[in-house]
Amino acid sequence: MNAPHPSGPGGWDTRRQGRQRRLERAAAIGLGRLVPAARVVDLLEAVIEPGDRVCLEGNNQKQADFLAESLADCSPERLHDLHMVQSVLALPSHVDLFERGLARRLDFSFSGPQGGRLARLVQDRQIEIGAIHTYLELFGRYFMDLTPKVSLIAAQSADAAGNLYTGPNTEDTPAIVEATAFKGGIVIAQVNELKDSLPRVDVPADWVDFVIVAPRPNYIEPLFTRDPAQITEVQVLMAMMAIKGIYAEYEVKRLNHGIGFDTAAIELLLPTYAADLGLKGKICTHWALNPHPTLIPAIEAGCVESVHSFGSEVGMENYIAARSDVFFTGADGSMRSNRAFSQTAGLYACDMFIGSTLQIDLAGNSSTATLGRITGFGGAPNMGSDPHGRRHASAAWLKAGREAGGANAIRGRKLVVQMVETFREHMAPVFVEQLDAWKLKESMGMDLPPIMIYGDDVSHVVTEEGIANLLLCRTAEEREQAIRGVAGFTPVGMARDRRMVENLRDRGIIRRPEDMGIDPRMASRDLLAARSVKDLVRWSGGLYAPPARFRNW
Amino acid sequence: MNAPHPSGPGGWDTRRQGRQRRLERAAAIGLGRLVPAARVVDLLEAVIEPGDRVCLEGNNQKQADFLAESLADCSPERLHDLHMVQSVLALPSHVDLFERGLARRLDFSFSGPQGGRLARLVQDRQIEIGAIHTYLELFGRYFMDLTPKVSLIAAQSADAAGNLYTGPNTEDTPAIVEATAFKGGIVIAQVNELKDSLPRVDVPADWVDFVIVAPRPNYIEPLFTRDPAQITEVQVLMAMMAIKGIYAEYEVKRLNHGIGFDTAAIELLLPTYAADLGLKGKICTHWALNPHPTLIPAIEAGCVESVHSFGSEVGMENYIAARSDVFFTGADGSMRSNRAFSQTAGLYACDMFIGSTLQIDLAGNSSTATLGRITGFGGAPNMGSDPHGRRHASAAWLKAGREAGGANAIRGRKLVVQMVETFREHMAPVFVEQLDAWKLKESMGMDLPPIMIYGDDVSHVVTEEGIANLLLCRTAEEREQAIRGVAGFTPVGMARDRRMVENLRDRGIIRRPEDMGIDPRMASRDLLAARSVKDLVRWSGGLYAPPARFRNW
Repeated sequence: MNAPHPSGPGGWDTRRQGRQRRLERAAAIGLGRLVPAARVVDLLEAVIEPGDRVCLEGNNQKQADFLAESLADCSPERLHDLHMVQSVLALPSHVDLFERGLARRLDFSFSGPQGGRLARLVQDRQIEIGAIHTYLELFGRYFMDLTPKVSLIAAQSADAAGNLYTGPNTEDTPAIVEATAFKGGIVIAQVNELKDSLPRVDVPADWVDFVIVAPRPNYIEPLFTRDPAQITEVQVLMAMMAIKGIYAEYEVKRLNHGIGFDTAAIELLLPTYAADLGLKGKICTHWALNPHPTLIPAIEAGCVESVHSFGSEVGMENYIAARSDVFFTGADGSMRSNRAFSQTAGLYACDMFIGSTLQIDLAGNSSTATLGRITGFGGAPNMGSDPHGRRHASAAWLKAGREAGGANAIRGRKLVVQMVETFREHMAPVFVEQLDAWKLKESMGMDLPPIMIYGDDVSHVVTEEGIANLLLCRTAEEREQAIRGVAGFTPVGMARDRRMVENLRDRGIIRRPEDMGIDPRMASRDLLAARSVKDLVRWSGGLYAPPARFRNW
Repeated sequence: MNAPHPSGPGGWDTRRQGRQRRLERAAAIGLGRLVPAARVVDLLEAVIEPGDRVCLEGNNQKQADFLAESLADCSPERLHDLHMVQSVLALPSHVDLFERGLARRLDFSFSGPQGGRLARLVQDRQIEIGAIHTYLELFGRYFMDLTPKVSLIAAQSADAAGNLYTGPNTEDTPAIVEATAFKGGIVIAQVNELKDSLPRVDVPADWVDFVIVAPRPNYIEPLFTRDPAQITEVQVLMAMMAIKGIYAEYEVKRLNHGIGFDTAAIELLLPTYAADLGLKGKICTHWALNPHPTLIPAIEAGCVESVHSFGSEVGMENYIAARSDVFFTGADGSMRSNRAFSQTAGLYACDMFIGSTLQIDLAGNSSTATLGRITGFGGAPNMGSDPHGRRHASAAWLKAGREAGGANAIRGRKLVVQMVETFREHMAPVFVEQLDAWKLKESMGMDLPPIMIYGDDVSHVVTEEGIANLLLCRTAEEREQAIRGVAGFTPVGMARDRRMVENLRDRGIIRRPEDMGIDPRMASRDLLAARSVKDLVRWSGGLYAPPARFRNW
């Protein structure tokens, strides 16, 4: 037997010692658990060390924006070569960190509004991108090889002991804090207010090292609010096809909807068109979904049993509190969201994901990556994939599995639906021979093209021309023609083999509105349960309080 | 616009009202937050209602055994038609619930020791099985359509306020409690002791309704302890092949090992054989793994950077506390395990899963289901599947992807390795033409055969005869012959097409020990870093305290 080694280099508790060293530096400059906002830079410079892996909380909703700006205000001579790990790169301050020389490396999931600036930083070699992840994947790495040394998080309020109340926007906080606090890291929370007692405890005090009352409430983006007034009749038609041709046929009860007007239209047809088809209670009863205001009419009509949310949505607080049978809420009445658990439910407990994209190729691969922008994918790759680890059956999953696998199917299949109009804004075709992702791979030096959803995971493509059921395709050629067959007047659609497309239609692989008994002339906005934000407020009995930008009355 | 409905049937807070009603019934019989053990049946009969969905905590380690037995002691006239949701069906009391008429339906993940009794209950129609899940999948459903009304959990200690300390065995508790507490449910915790102050807070008090000090500490099974003395030289040989032929070639740094002597042998070769190959720091640095005692030598030799655990392991407490750089521990020094996060890391942040099975068919499908027993799969299907939602690259993942996808690969691949001797005990062949799972499907009336890992997710099969690399197979026939080619003297192995197998060997799809430069005569137990439990204790510097059954000195 080899001789045991009494200790590793520097001992076996270097992380714990490092943590102690950082806490002592903070104490030495007079900083205790509650840190005045004016001294935030002092705190950050005291507890962060060059080269640290730092997690900055923020997602498509809640942002630890005060801590982000404060970190960007630190001296690059004191703090440099930071490795940032964060769900989204959304705020200007997030990019400032790299431009100002504080941070060097980035692992993240999504960067919507800052995608252009990020691409320029990559080309100027001012940033190293570790990888672009899906949210749940990034959380998993927090417990594996991307564990943060310091995490900067946001909560609604704290008590004197340091317990945190995150309120409806719990979001990513539990995953970040647990990975950091239990591996010798430091957790710093910005809060909107100090309270004598909290409505409930979302994060226990002994997981949190420092609390700072920020000079203004943390930023929250109402990302999931869609004004019904902007839904077009083409979108109504597509929603009718999705409901009749997919939701009803597979009896889809458990699902997630992506963001966008296409799926908002479906939500607004549930209490009208779908109910008229006798589908109430038979479809769309259980959701992994943020509290979309456009789901209010379906909830009020009794179509929805349960909604678990990744985050909250501005203005929905009172409505959620009054609908505790549907939403997950605490004893205080406010929602408890949790992105990690909702993504887990979206992965393993949903029978369908339906969302939109910017480009689809002939194999069904889709991407939202376009030249000159690095955006990432958020939760879509997780929910828009067929989980081979799933073992429980449902009617939808078994039927999809039979269609894909034939008589010898040994498993079911998730339904992954891409719903797009064939042209997007500026008449850019959605269907393309080659995704821009391939050019982005070259220009950004990536290992692989940034594909959002792989074609072999896609079960259906819905366009204004009809539905292509890719599960029933038996060859790559059939698949290509099924996609061309719903690609409308795009060059990809025009290049279809008409005979083969007709054959696919005869076999039910391509279905036109009339094949489903849908008259496109009936696709009227009158079918929408709400046609304006004001209608949504009315449906909610005045409980929904839309942000000012969505009010025109 | 349709008229808004002011409320659903019975209002919008029936769950909250139901919760209030239950709490009032408990109060009416004099029960407060702290319930004496002698009154546990009164409590359960007061707060549970017939037909409730009840979650009983327990996994392959910690068990809420006192609450399980107490529930089984309730009157079936008061409590009946319960729908049990639980990770494992492990204790006799779990089955008693069904035999005594309290519970009717079961959704679970694993039932090792009770598999035979469970199968008989199914055949006698005394139980309805909803589905057999993988752990993470079941947690996902807790937030979707299997949300518990009442959860019975286990913790180490509680304070007077009701805060819980789970200590190293946090395991499934956070997922169960969050789903229950935030959907109008009731959480009842059995604890081993009441404390004035807790070492740390693992579950905040306001998520917990009732605390009971159990008459004896909750049961914990040392499931992941393997005595090195029982490792055979065939297992050493297989471990050498795995290390040299897979770990080294793919540079596998992030991984999970299944339970068993096969992978224990690999763990014990890391500081010896693997280090001699120059692999220290190049493989096996980051783990999603319970604290296997057989990993101690590799940790002590400095081969391991980080381990995140699903649960703890009896006897490893002091060792873990002294190795906080490696394990996730709290400020109190004890581990924080978390099955949901560790499974998430195992799914998305690991490049490899390697484990054993009881049967493998010609397509590579594997199962631990055998006739007359319903066992389930635990975490294996989750970790032993290629997650299509993964988007970050690593050397291992990219190489596996290139092998599987050729020049046009658009994604990487997880390595999923099945490691088996060709015959198991009683000379039962592991390789079979048809899995017993198919017969079990018929006899149990299941929708699909209970397959643990699907063949198309398996990348390699390792036996004493060699390694079959299924990624490189291009047809179903090649795949079948690659499997036959390592199936030894089983009937499946004997029926190989010898010419085709030699061709596969020429192409590197099948590799024998000698093809990897391994001399089977060198496969000696002398290579194991520890050859007994006592050796493990010595490696640990006396910190590892094995349970009595593993001590023979």
